[in-house]
Parts: sequence; C-alpha cells; structure tokens
Amino acid sequence: MATLDAISIPTFSDVEDAAARLVGIAHVTPVMTSAHLDMLAGAQLFLKMESVQRGGAFKFRGAYNALSRLDGAAAHHGVVAFSSGNHAQAVALAGRMLGIRATIFMPSDAPAAKQAATRGYGARVILYDRRNDDREAMARRLVEEDGQTLIPPFDHPHIIAGQGTATHELIEQVGPLDRLYVPISGGGLIAGSAIAAAAMCPNCEIIGVEVAGGDRARRSLDANRIVRIDIPDTIADGAQAPQMGPITFTAVRALVHRLTTVTDAALGQAMRLCMERMKQVVEPTGCMGLAAALADAPSGARIGVIISGGNVDPAVYGYIIRTGASA
Amino acid sequence: MATLDAISIPTFSDVEDAAARLVGIAHVTPVMTSAHLDMLAGAQLFLKMESVQRGGAFKFRGAYNALSRLDGAAAHHGVVAFSSGNHAQAVALAGRMLGIRATIFMPSDAPAAKQAATRGYGARVILYDRRNDDREAMARRLVEEDGQTLIPPFDHPHIIAGQGTATHELIEQVGPLDRLYVPISGGGLIAGSAIAAAAMCPNCEIIGVEVAGGDRARRSLDANRIVRIDIPDTIADGAQAPQMGPITFTAVRALVHRLTTVTDAALGQAMRLCMERMKQVVEPTGCMGLAAALADAPSGARIGVIISGGNVDPAVYGYIIRTGASA
Repeated sequence: MATLDAISIPTFSDVEDAAARLVGIAHVTPVMTSAHLDMLAGAQLFLKMESVQRGGAFKFRGAYNALSRLDGAAAHHGVVAFSSGNHAQAVALAGRMLGIRATIFMPSDAPAAKQAATRGYGARVILYDRRNDDREAMARRLVEEDGQTLIPPFDHPHIIAGQGTATHELIEQVGPLDRLYVPISGGGLIAGSAIAAAAMCPNCEIIGVEVAGGDRARRSLDANRIVRIDIPDTIADGAQAPQMGPITFTAVRALVHRLTTVTDAALGQAMRLCMERMKQVVEPTGCMGLAAALADAPSGARIGVIISGGNVDPAVYGYIIRTGASA
Repeated sequence: MATLDAISIPTFSDVEDAAARLVGIAHVTPVMTSAHLDMLAGAQLFLKMESVQRGGAFKFRGAYNALSRLDGAAAHHGVVAFSSGNHAQAVALAGRMLGIRATIFMPSDAPAAKQAATRGYGARVILYDRRNDDREAMARRLVEEDGQTLIPPFDHPHIIAGQGTATHELIEQVGPLDRLYVPISGGGLIAGSAIAAAAMCPNCEIIGVEVAGGDRARRSLDANRIVRIDIPDTIADGAQAPQMGPITFTAVRALVHRLTTVTDAALGQAMRLCMERMKQVVEPTGCMGLAAALADAPSGARIGVIISGGNVDPAVYGYIIRTGASA
C-alpha cells in the first residue's frame, strides 16, 4: 500500500474553484422533495436532480472543469475519452462549449442513440470492437502522436473536484444534512461529494451506494487495496466500472462513513416512484441513492440524495416503468 | 345566442387576484427549454411545466382559487366534484389544505391508482356506475340537502381565473411571447390563459389545441354555439370533455386567435421527446401544446407552451415510451 498512501486527494478549495468555474455554465439543478417519498422513507429527503444537468448527468461538471483547465496548446490538440455512457456526452458537450475537439471511443455495440447524442454534441466518435481491438493502443496513438489529452472518467483531481460541485450546490440550496447518499461506480462522484460534505457539514454521515454484485468499493475497503471485480450484471449501466482508481479509493477510504448495496428490483421501484410521484425520468444508476435512502434512512433525519442522471434508453425505460420489473 | 351574449368572462384583474392568492400555496413551476426541441421546432420554446404542479397538473390552481373563496358556512358544509382525473385530485388537495371536506364522484371504472391518490389527499370518494346510476341526482342530494358546494371542472369564473395564473406566471418568468399554445378540453385552461396573455402581451397569438376527433371548440366556433361532440377516442384522457361551457366558449370566441388539432401519434412522439430530452414525465394531454408547436411554430419566434400535467398510469406511460406508439 506504499504507493496508495502517497496519493493525495483534491481539497474542498478545489471543489470551490470548480464551482466558481461552473457558474453560468452548468445548470443549477433543482432540489426536489416529495411528501409521499418522505412518508415512505420516514425522513426528509432532498433530491438533487442531476438528471436535468446539461448532458443529462452530473458528469458534465467534472468534464467541463477538466477541459477548462487545459492550457492553450493542449486545448488546441483536443481531448480523447473512452465511454459508452454519460462521460462521453459530458466530454463532447464540454468540448463543444470550450471549442476543444473531442474524440470519443465507444464500443461498437453502444446504443445507436448514445452514439448519435455524442455526435450531436460535435464529437468525433470512433467505434471499436470490445473483443478484438486494442483500445489502449488506439488511444496511445492519439495521445502520443497527436498530442491529445486523455480525459479519464473518474480518477483525476479535476474530474473529482467538478463532480463535488453537485453536493456543494445541494448543501448551499438546502443547508446542513444529517446524511448523504451517493452512487458509486469508479468513485468520482462519491469522492467529490464526500470532500464537499465533509467540509460543509462535518456531522453529515456520507453513505456510498453500490449495486448488489457490484461492490468493488466494499471489497476494496475490506482488503485495503483496490480490488477488481467482474462487470456486474445490473440495470444500473452507469455502475459497471470494474474497479476504483487510486485517488477515488483513497478519498472513499478517508471520508465515506458507510457503504451499502441496492438490488435491481429496488432500483426499478425507485424509478417508478420518481416517475409517478415527481414526474421525473431517472436512469437506473441515478436511483441508487434514493433506493438506499428508502431502505435505511433514520427517522426524521434530513437526507441528501444525489440523483446522478436521467439518460436511459426509451425502450428500456418503458419496460421498467410498465412492468415494475428489473428489465 | 341571446343567452351566450349575456355571458361575462373573468378579467385580468381576476387572474391577478388568483395569482396573489396562490403565492406560497401553488408551486412556481419551472420553465424548461431544450436546444434539441428548439432545433426541431425552428423556434424558441418555453415550456411551462405544470406537470410538476401540486397534484401533478394545472388543475390545482383553479381548484384552490375556487375553494379559498367559499365563505365560512359554505366551507363548513364541504364541496363536491365529479372527476376521474386531475380535477378530482386538485379539489381533494385544495380541500385538505383549506380544511374543507371534499366528496369526489368517480366512475367505478376509474383507475385504482387515481382513486387511491384522491383518497390519499383526504377526500371521500363515491363510485358510481356510468350506465346505471344517476350521478346528477346523487350530486343534487349532496348540494340541496347537505348544503355542499359543487365545484365544476372548468366553467366557473374562479376556476378559469385560477387556471390563468399558469400563463401569468410564465410571462412573468420569460417576458413577452409571440405565440402561446394551450390544450383545450372543457376550455378552463385556454380561457384563463387567453385572458392573461391578452393583457400581458397583446401581440401574442393565442392558439388552442384540440385532439383530432375531439374538436368541440372548432365546431362550436364554426357554428357560433356550443356544440356537443361524442367523447373522442384518444390517448389524451384529459381532453375528453364532450362540450365547452358558456363562459369558456365565450372566452375562446373572444380571445383565441386560432385553433389546431394534433394526433395521438404526435402526442406519443412529444411524450417521448420530453422523456429523452428533458427527463420529464408528461401525460398525453399535457403534450398537446408541444405537439402543435413542433408542427407549426413560425421560424425564430418566442413560443410559450403550457405543459398541462404529468399524471399518467405507469403501464400506459411505459407502453407509449417503449413503443413510440399511441397506446
């Protein structure tokens, strides 16, 4: 663990800097409340709706923060990212807003709608075959030969600081919280959230939420090293990172009080509650915090929940809402 | 037409009074915009999201305005309403907030979820058989013997003035508009909207939207009398009033510039656009204005659209979103 012990995590000042940089750029997303959800949870829930953030997810915050800090030469050469999901759209959109050329590598089986949305934001999309192509080599060529900057999806100080602005904004909007529920995949959102919450309301209990069968953070904390897991089979397609990174692992180990898991069935129920009671479309991953809060929020507490995104294929969404089943 | 010529419609001052009465009571609903929708429409769309109003629809505005004006004796005796839809929940919710007992007559085949939601707001729900029960007689007994006040769904000055506050609020939020698209069923929303828009932006063209096969306003204006139509077969279950009332007809005749119709297929497409692009759940009726605006908005104009509600059965919603079809 010698190498991990040397890792430093972003500071609250980094989150504040990112927040200042996003003023007038990112949407100030609404905090929604529901008497019905409060009744179900037995607590007061404050839902931070990153589903209506630009690009449909919190990911824009980190991507814009990272891209906006590139120097002139780096910005000129452009950026490259790997993603079939929300990170792709976030980097593409931030690139367009900043005039930085973005190249996104997507697996060739990524949904056509996501490819189209990413191209719609002006990015160049390069499809690769998950089994046969060496995407690392393809990226290395772009980075080493073309001078492009790789924008990682979570394990980067500027990405983490940017993601932390969602919680920074939430606490500014509603005041101190007793608890905060945040989904975990690679750990960028939980790391930034924990940095913000620890500084702004030191008594707030920070709870990381993983999907059942996808508990790479739980296993990593237990082993006190980064554990790689098999890609979990879950409807939460944004929570499928096989492992955390050195920075996100270090931040979670230092700042997160507790981890919990939720099932696909609980995610489907939470999606349907968001639809019926709040008229909000939330993607499966986006409901992880809500599903956990409904299961174990302490009576009467003030609970913050990061609703991380709303990008979900209409066919999948319709199926889950119609059947209440887990796709 | 002698009797109709004697009908007076609410004034802008009535709308302003209703707006003042709703401060801190009704939600100030957000105005949403979407670059993608603007691109499709070739115009700048401002969507007034009454889908996230209390009770899930604009109906709360009129119901609260009407109930809040009852005198002490009337309030003591309670109110009665007929509705299987958004009016039921609106009257129930306003009654609970004002401490006024509400009795709602619903057809026995009304969806269980709507019955439960109305009861959940504290109303007494009385089910009747559409074919065999004489609901008028049942209501007459409550009104004449028990002294309850009947709250009509649309043709009442306080209802119309209350519904007008959605447009009043929209124009306060975004400034003058070139056009305003509003759904029509019995005409309460369009009447109030037209009164507000005519006063606040006199150059705004006010367009009423009906469903194909449900054009009772179109036929009534053509005949210059209130025409009763067969209940239209449409997914827009909130646009099935067989006829307008004397006040709403008079207001539409005086203030609305143009009427248009939309198909179920266009409503399904608009619902899916709201889901994918704005992450908002909108009921079929709620999309009528958007579907019309997408079809015929003039290039570059500033277009207001009243998204009237978001109450839709999850099974129906899931089906429409999944298939893109018209249920």
